[in-house]
Amino acid sequence: MCSYICKCKLYYLLTNNKIKLINSLKLKKNRDAHGLFLCEGEKVVKEFLNSKFEIEDVFSTDLNVFPEAIKVSSKELSRISHLKTPGNVLGLLRIPQYKFDISQLSDKITIALDNLKDPGNLGTIIRIADWFGIENIICSAECVDVYNPKVVQSTMGSLTRVNTYNVNLQEIIRQTTVKSYGAVLEGDNIYNASKINEGVIVFGNESNGIGEEVMSLLDNKITIPRIGGAESLNAAVSAGIICSELFRKTI
Amino acid sequence: MCSYICKCKLYYLLTNNKIKLINSLKLKKNRDAHGLFLCEGEKVVKEFLNSKFEIEDVFSTDLNVFPEAIKVSSKELSRISHLKTPGNVLGLLRIPQYKFDISQLSDKITIALDNLKDPGNLGTIIRIADWFGIENIICSAECVDVYNPKVVQSTMGSLTRVNTYNVNLQEIIRQTTVKSYGAVLEGDNIYNASKINEGVIVFGNESNGIGEEVMSLLDNKITIPRIGGAESLNAAVSAGIICSELFRKTI
Repeated sequence: MCSYICKCKLYYLLTNNKIKLINSLKLKKNRDAHGLFLCEGEKVVKEFLNSKFEIEDVFSTDLNVFPEAIKVSSKELSRISHLKTPGNVLGLLRIPQYKFDISQLSDKITIALDNLKDPGNLGTIIRIADWFGIENIICSAECVDVYNPKVVQSTMGSLTRVNTYNVNLQEIIRQTTVKSYGAVLEGDNIYNASKINEGVIVFGNESNGIGEEVMSLLDNKITIPRIGGAESLNAAVSAGIICSELFRKTI
Repeated sequence: MCSYICKCKLYYLLTNNKIKLINSLKLKKNRDAHGLFLCEGEKVVKEFLNSKFEIEDVFSTDLNVFPEAIKVSSKELSRISHLKTPGNVLGLLRIPQYKFDISQLSDKITIALDNLKDPGNLGTIIRIADWFGIENIICSAECVDVYNPKVVQSTMGSLTRVNTYNVNLQEIIRQTTVKSYGAVLEGDNIYNASKINEGVIVFGNESNGIGEEVMSLLDNKITIPRIGGAESLNAAVSAGIICSELFRKTI
């Protein structure tokens, strides 16, 4: 390769404007405006490269691992990274424009999130959905953005296999004939529930649970029985336990 | 109350040395040297105040909520808080000196953690143990410190009801006659496991799982069946699912 051309390319691709653009993607409004989001770390970027996501740019310090990437120095990578300890790669990707149709709820389990705020919880729930083969997650408008860098990182690549949709959750639950099940603190014991092959499983906000409006529309309320003293379980842990319980009944 | 005395007390209690001491407790070596740790937030501090933990000081902006606290301004609280958004209270507590005896493993389920590094995961696992009524968690020497402020916060007060011990995990598993069960990616399907009333359930490191030495000593290896594409589950989610599975068999 001609080093002159390489240097030019490098200069062009990591202008201050590009760095500014990438750093601006910490905020949802900028991600929405540009239709772009970031992913970082070798495992996560590899999963996105092998997925249906549209890749805008890949910047890496190691072209042996990422031959298709634009070479950057560690210092340059640390200027664009959102991580405290940047890895060897950062990917810039297009936000997909999935459209959700209510018929997608039929014949399967769907996770619905009402006002879930913690990025780590959302990422972990996407990973749980991927583990149990759940295709779709629908999120109320108040949920943390799926393309928040912390969410993307904590999915560990599962975002490439699980479809997420921003929806009007109340409208969907009101309109669908598919049964809805809310995870609450005082509902039916999940261990006694019968097999469910189709349903919308709703998980609420970390502090306040499911909002009143969605709550009033639910067909069923389900609970993980407690025998100790904790007031509640972490939202992602509850989701994991309930998904496991649904899945164990299908085998 | 005499405002002169109050001011003196305040002056004495929030000297720069005190602030330095509290801020130094971010590091394990300083927590160990002083035998002190911090907790923050109304719910968490209240749980510690009603627990067996020995309280050194409580600093609060709101004496209506915490009448026993030393009054501080919001600005003063933000100087000693470890949180991005300080609440209304910070408690300074003594680290308890629990001793673990191998006989404590009998007739119950105990969680064992091998080289667990993420503070949020450890806190969440302590909360899971509290939910399912598990009394004791034993941690290998390489685990993140239980009194790390992020761990304490994410237990949401459950640390007041679950005993944690730093142990030589290999020695304990080698010596005990209680059966050990390691959570691994390729073991026996947990849904088919028989009822367990006594056992040490071992969870490993977030990236590398259970270490070789502990692994070679395990009596059983258990796995949450996967049907989707995720490579693994989050460590705390795995712990939640496995604890739920153990508990559902006892009812």
